[in-house]
Amino acid sequence: MSVPAHAADRPHAGLFVTFEGGDGAGKTTQSTLLQEWLERSGRTVVRTREPGGTEVGVLVRDIVLHHRGDIAPRAEALLYAADRAHHIATVVRPALDRGDTVIQDRYLDSSVAYQGAGRVLGRDEVRDLSLWATEGLLPDLTVLLDLDPRVARERLDADDKPFDRLEAEREGFHVRVRTEFLALAEAEPDRFLVLDATRPAADLADAVRARVGGMLPDAP
Amino acid sequence: MSVPAHAADRPHAGLFVTFEGGDGAGKTTQSTLLQEWLERSGRTVVRTREPGGTEVGVLVRDIVLHHRGDIAPRAEALLYAADRAHHIATVVRPALDRGDTVIQDRYLDSSVAYQGAGRVLGRDEVRDLSLWATEGLLPDLTVLLDLDPRVARERLDADDKPFDRLEAEREGFHVRVRTEFLALAEAEPDRFLVLDATRPAADLADAVRARVGGMLPDAP
Repeated sequence: MSVPAHAADRPHAGLFVTFEGGDGAGKTTQSTLLQEWLERSGRTVVRTREPGGTEVGVLVRDIVLHHRGDIAPRAEALLYAADRAHHIATVVRPALDRGDTVIQDRYLDSSVAYQGAGRVLGRDEVRDLSLWATEGLLPDLTVLLDLDPRVARERLDADDKPFDRLEAEREGFHVRVRTEFLALAEAEPDRFLVLDATRPAADLADAVRARVGGMLPDAP
Repeated sequence: MSVPAHAADRPHAGLFVTFEGGDGAGKTTQSTLLQEWLERSGRTVVRTREPGGTEVGVLVRDIVLHHRGDIAPRAEALLYAADRAHHIATVVRPALDRGDTVIQDRYLDSSVAYQGAGRVLGRDEVRDLSLWATEGLLPDLTVLLDLDPRVARERLDADDKPFDRLEAEREGFHVRVRTEFLALAEAEPDRFLVLDATRPAADLADAVRARVGGMLPDAP
């Protein structure tokens, strides 16, 4: 059974919502629909992403992407953690303290799922590193858009979108990422909302709104 | 009592020597004298430093130095740890595995001492982060060139060397850094060789050689 955390139980005035799932699952579409819905009701929304949500993050992302294959695995994990630490401290926490809703594309569950699927570093190590970086900040709600990687690939091919370096890895990897995400959701059912990403976008948006609506601080 | 680790007790074929101490204590001079002495006896020496000992490290260093004041403390610690992870994995460990002697200007003791003196993050956290980054690599020998920060400052003024950002911090900070270094040396007497950096350079070099000589693998 899944019980959303009510505003009074949270350590900040705002609401922290993350979207997770493989590329092609519809994170951007659903983030935009949620943002529009919240803004129509007069709420302030901060849309952000990792990596690269800050100036420092852009520089970190450049290092990781431009040195593909040359970066030691722990160095890469630490660079992403540095981006995260800076992003959370300078963008997300201030917004949450102001009472804003933060909608973020990918967060620590992505780090854990992708590392878990790659099996270079331990899941717990990656999670601990993220929690140290962020002084323990977990999302109030994580929407997992669950999709078979083969369907995701067809969607991305149809968009004629070039694959980035993670997308280009072989299919087995994406199947493992999906399994890792589902295991994370099962371990924290209160935090996660798992949705079948093959459903129509409007239906998914309704499901997200229903959940977020029950978690919002008092109307602005 | 201080017992140097003999070659047979070490996890790698080479020897890992770090120099620590405040700026102006003579780390560069002593590193050079040790390198020349080792090379005269036919040994292969790798001289290196942190941050910035690799291409990735130079990029990381640029981020930290060019965003002074704008980087969250944990992000900065993670960036330095990323530099360290990459540097150790790609430069130091391969050299130690080949049987080379690595002479490094600053390592995890600097991170711990400077953080400990600044008291932004915990000493143990910073140490744990470094050990995670490096898969637990500790130096075989750490030479601490101990110097009163006021003397160091006079030396640097005499050299007309512009102060970098850490040097420019107030004197009390440097006094605390010195205390932190001495505490680290006291906690690990087998690993540290503490030398009074006001002694003549030639005397210091002799003391370093005497210690290193007893730790070297069989003659090349």
